[in-house]
Amino acid sequence: MLDTSLDAVAFCEGARSLAVRGVRAGRAFAVHDWVADEVPVALEYNGISHAVMLATPLDLEDFALGFSLSEGILGAAHELYAVEEVVSELGITLRLQVASSAFARLKERRRSMAGRTGCGLCGTESLAQVARDLPVLTDQTPLEREAISRAMSQFFSFQTLQQATGAVHAAAWCSAQGEVMWLREDVGRHNALDKLIGALAAQDVDAASGFIAVTSRASFEMVQKTAMAGVPLLAAVSAPTSYAVATAQRARMTLVGFARQQDLVVYCDSGRLTLEPSLDNAHAH
Amino acid sequence: MLDTSLDAVAFCEGARSLAVRGVRAGRAFAVHDWVADEVPVALEYNGISHAVMLATPLDLEDFALGFSLSEGILGAAHELYAVEEVVSELGITLRLQVASSAFARLKERRRSMAGRTGCGLCGTESLAQVARDLPVLTDQTPLEREAISRAMSQFFSFQTLQQATGAVHAAAWCSAQGEVMWLREDVGRHNALDKLIGALAAQDVDAASGFIAVTSRASFEMVQKTAMAGVPLLAAVSAPTSYAVATAQRARMTLVGFARQQDLVVYCDSGRLTLEPSLDNAHAH
Repeated sequence: MLDTSLDAVAFCEGARSLAVRGVRAGRAFAVHDWVADEVPVALEYNGISHAVMLATPLDLEDFALGFSLSEGILGAAHELYAVEEVVSELGITLRLQVASSAFARLKERRRSMAGRTGCGLCGTESLAQVARDLPVLTDQTPLEREAISRAMSQFFSFQTLQQATGAVHAAAWCSAQGEVMWLREDVGRHNALDKLIGALAAQDVDAASGFIAVTSRASFEMVQKTAMAGVPLLAAVSAPTSYAVATAQRARMTLVGFARQQDLVVYCDSGRLTLEPSLDNAHAH
Repeated sequence: MLDTSLDAVAFCEGARSLAVRGVRAGRAFAVHDWVADEVPVALEYNGISHAVMLATPLDLEDFALGFSLSEGILGAAHELYAVEEVVSELGITLRLQVASSAFARLKERRRSMAGRTGCGLCGTESLAQVARDLPVLTDQTPLEREAISRAMSQFFSFQTLQQATGAVHAAAWCSAQGEVMWLREDVGRHNALDKLIGALAAQDVDAASGFIAVTSRASFEMVQKTAMAGVPLLAAVSAPTSYAVATAQRARMTLVGFARQQDLVVYCDSGRLTLEPSLDNAHAH
């Protein structure tokens, strides 16, 4: 991102400096600009290739763990024994060693996918793969809207890669009081969320005791991943989709959109969020 | 998107109205809000399931054609014979009937994917799938930066779904003079671009004679799809990634980022874009 205050940055992890030219306020310029790294990252489980994602090569151990948990390949963090990063010219391969229970789950899923692909069963069955069984989020810890405003006001100061590049999304886990405790960045919003979920699991954070805030929109997949992590509230800077709202309802998650400064919109309530705390406090006392 | 001017909208294709509550400028409210539709869309080629995408259920024929072209499944639009939309509770299946040449290509690709998956070859080979052979864009029609500014100034007025929901991306094809000629919207930026590429192919537009502008960032996949469509310039409202820049260089595409009002940054030039037209004109005359 072009910002003269960043000209002095000599190194930014996850980004590289490129010579660019451009026009600003009618004047042509030529400078060096920080551009976020995006690399093909392959995930391999016990020697079997599973998926390739385009991601920012930071916090890849968190990514490996978080992706595996939110895709339902791992049932718990302890099923992941080791992650090895192998860098080649084409990208990065993450070699995961997982417990046999997790590997059996993955093979079963892959077998059913291959069957569908190979024999050409009807599309309905492929569509059935999309929505997973989600946990129903029963935690009813009340959250006040000030906590979301507080998190949003802190967000940008933690987004170091975004400050340098203007190209990346962030996902943060915040305490019930709205303190940003963990934040991960990536060129992809799903990856940022998977990295965060991996970091929470690796640190054994009680994810249900706080909420997740993201700089992006709230799509179906963002809600599904948040629910898989057992987090009862997702606050997005931008809008949700209709399928995200329906999925939040199914998981009894509280879904907040357009969370900016003091403002927010609640798309799925589930009874957790107090919009008028002073009033409610007045009732309580 | 919450906007009192939209309260009068009785119907918005691709969106639905939901009861929401929220806080704005310190005051709680309860209104109906338009939320963009997101639906699982399965693509099936001659009876074989291929992929499921989450998309906005608008312009799905364009999507089917554009996805197939930019993924390299179809070599040309005439290889697609028919598209049937089958709606179920789980989503929408697009049943494509394609020429035997295209189907052979797809089967060959699927066989190699299944092989890699099943026998667990090393990750390097999975990574090799990511970057396709791209056309080298030889068209050297010069474009003036005013054309990009003109396109950006027109953009929002064409984004009907974005105006209602605030949740969707758009991709537009613009003439060399910067007139927005075709625009498609979707909750996913890749889908919006695929829909646009399908619309261009269906209408037999000479895509190389203009450029594509997108409301999102420019990631690797956006550059790859644009190159596959033979379009020599991609202008993004937000930043590119490093892999997007490298891919644009490989395809000799001109890649522009942060295209906003009169400003822009050129990340990969390829000699097409005139930044100072008046000066250049002065030289020319």
